Amino acid sequence: MTRGFPEAEFRTRVSNAQALMAAQGLGAILMTTEPNVRYFSGFLTRFWESPSRPWFLIVPAAGEPIAVIPSIGSVLMGRGWVKDIRTWSAPNLEDDGVTLLADTLREVGGPIGVPSGYETHLRMPLADFERVKTLSGLEFTGDAGIVADLRAVKSEAEIAKIEVACGIAARSFARMGEIAREGISVEQVFRDFQRLLLEEGADWVPYISGAAAPGGYDDVISLASPDPMAAGDVLMLDTGAIWDGYFCDYDRNFSIGKPSEAVQSAHARLIDATHAGLEAARPGVTARDVWRAMADIAGAGEEAGRLGHALGMQLTEGLSLTPRDETVLKPGMVITLEPGTQVSPGKIMVHEENIVITEGVPRVISPLADPEIVQI
Amino acid sequence: MTRGFPEAEFRTRVSNAQALMAAQGLGAILMTTEPNVRYFSGFLTRFWESPSRPWFLIVPAAGEPIAVIPSIGSVLMGRGWVKDIRTWSAPNLEDDGVTLLADTLREVGGPIGVPSGYETHLRMPLADFERVKTLSGLEFTGDAGIVADLRAVKSEAEIAKIEVACGIAARSFARMGEIAREGISVEQVFRDFQRLLLEEGADWVPYISGAAAPGGYDDVISLASPDPMAAGDVLMLDTGAIWDGYFCDYDRNFSIGKPSEAVQSAHARLIDATHAGLEAARPGVTARDVWRAMADIAGAGEEAGRLGHALGMQLTEGLSLTPRDETVLKPGMVITLEPGTQVSPGKIMVHEENIVITEGVPRVISPLADPEIVQI
Repeated sequence: MTRGFPEAEFRTRVSNAQALMAAQGLGAILMTTEPNVRYFSGFLTRFWESPSRPWFLIVPAAGEPIAVIPSIGSVLMGRGWVKDIRTWSAPNLEDDGVTLLADTLREVGGPIGVPSGYETHLRMPLADFERVKTLSGLEFTGDAGIVADLRAVKSEAEIAKIEVACGIAARSFARMGEIAREGISVEQVFRDFQRLLLEEGADWVPYISGAAAPGGYDDVISLASPDPMAAGDVLMLDTGAIWDGYFCDYDRNFSIGKPSEAVQSAHARLIDATHAGLEAARPGVTARDVWRAMADIAGAGEEAGRLGHALGMQLTEGLSLTPRDETVLKPGMVITLEPGTQVSPGKIMVHEENIVITEGVPRVISPLADPEIVQI
Repeated sequence: MTRGFPEAEFRTRVSNAQALMAAQGLGAILMTTEPNVRYFSGFLTRFWESPSRPWFLIVPAAGEPIAVIPSIGSVLMGRGWVKDIRTWSAPNLEDDGVTLLADTLREVGGPIGVPSGYETHLRMPLADFERVKTLSGLEFTGDAGIVADLRAVKSEAEIAKIEVACGIAARSFARMGEIAREGISVEQVFRDFQRLLLEEGADWVPYISGAAAPGGYDDVISLASPDPMAAGDVLMLDTGAIWDGYFCDYDRNFSIGKPSEAVQSAHARLIDATHAGLEAARPGVTARDVWRAMADIAGAGEEAGRLGHALGMQLTEGLSLTPRDETVLKPGMVITLEPGTQVSPGKIMVHEENIVITEGVPRVISPLADPEIVQI
């Protein structure tokens, strides 16, 4: 599998953005976050883990993107397709790219669209953003969701990377018997599962979560417990592993020893709900429709939270399968089906698969689980 | 080593913040980012990897913190010391916590300090922030650097966690011979080194970087190359591994086969510079003084970028060892000494150690490297 993207793909992304920008009357869009900068530039590094330096990419209404970045990034950015790279020596407490960014934006012209809606944030100090606004004298506004809308529909090359990540997780889940059994702690399983993901080809593992508790769990976002697992525990492991900058995001449930009838029946219900989601997920239907198809079977109420979401350059991005999300599915969207169900009062189970929306039947890119919960 | 912190530590953090808030006349500080929310609440989860939901923690001028969070986090937050937890079912595209946050802030009273300076960002959609400002009718301002200043001086319990992370990296670096040799790619070394870190006890590995090239490298932020390493290459590996929410951040250089004289001499120069940094790093001196002590030996010019930084809950946070940073060192600060030097035109080497500022000689918490570069 080839890493990166051909230059043509970036040019398509930029020209698609520019068409939408023209319709909105934007002079430029200003990117400050890792996925948005990467989407248009290909700039892939783990260096964003450091909060010390802001990074900017400007997509103008016409012409090529301009990178305004700390000089430590110039070699890497220079290996990509972006040719206009302007740098400053960061960190600079007096002027951390503010003047350089304001000057560049003024050269490009406004209004400047800044992604400001759902799931976005501005990755630069607020005080510096105010200075850029003042110094540039330009009008700043939202980006009308342009970047999120573009990112929502994946190219074949993007989908291929997500599939590689899904395959890595699949091979790792198949090896769960090597690392999980009665008497082992979930903490140890988490650590070993990350190791398996790396062995199976993950570049890194930004996300892992899960739980183990008797007859189901009550929380899916806590760190792992150091307590040993016992017979009757349901172990859930959820992973977001990265390959070439793209995520998988799906989970598996395991029964430590023989499952109770309630657990087995909850698991079968989750797989039924997943199949209902698969049946519903067609172009033209809304995220809400898919939610409804799964919620009816899983018995999830309106307060159960979302039963899936889109994914890609981020673990979660874009639409949510909730009663309120009316986003229309389109071919090329990659989403999770993630039904949750109650096993007994206070005990839940959650199942998750990854699929690609196509013109017809969705392509399942995680190996669809059987109704019978896997026993280890 | 115990995970977490006693409640008393959080109470101290809050009362220290409140003393500084009183001096600034702030009614509350609003936290939106992972480390800031965690600093006052103890809320530790990898769920922040998902950008779909904002999380808020309010430290009022008097009294206890208030968490305003998505309901999916209530179980985990409820296990900690924060008792006032207000939740909404997120994501909610119409009102994603905006009204709940605005109401809570109005109850607490302004002015609301929002961290807005160096290294900060606002982790919520800009458009929602504007709505919160309008709805609450309160005055919003910066936090006068209060949160960053508090976080800069670590407690003994925090330092102990950083030391655990440093020990994990030390044991992993000691095993480099198992995974790196001529003919192996840096990409494979990266993957295997993350595995070693997990085996040695890391909870997860948010950051790894490095490079291998003949006689030194030209870039320290790129992802790893798939090309096999060859005799004469200098391999640098830099890691930020996490234990209980705290980072280590240091690197090691290795020579694949026998090092050239230029490489050996550059490595010795880096270790000399590190020792000069250690000599200089005393309470009362500035970050710039420590920079100068190292730069003089390493031959780093003003444009060489920083030669170290503080660390803790983030890979990098706080002061920078640059000619411009006049932050005064205090006991309890944990910093890196990270000199870089030129081996030959276009070829550099970088070395890094982690130290704790004390009343006297700094405590070195990464195993100080020898002048001779390790040969593998």
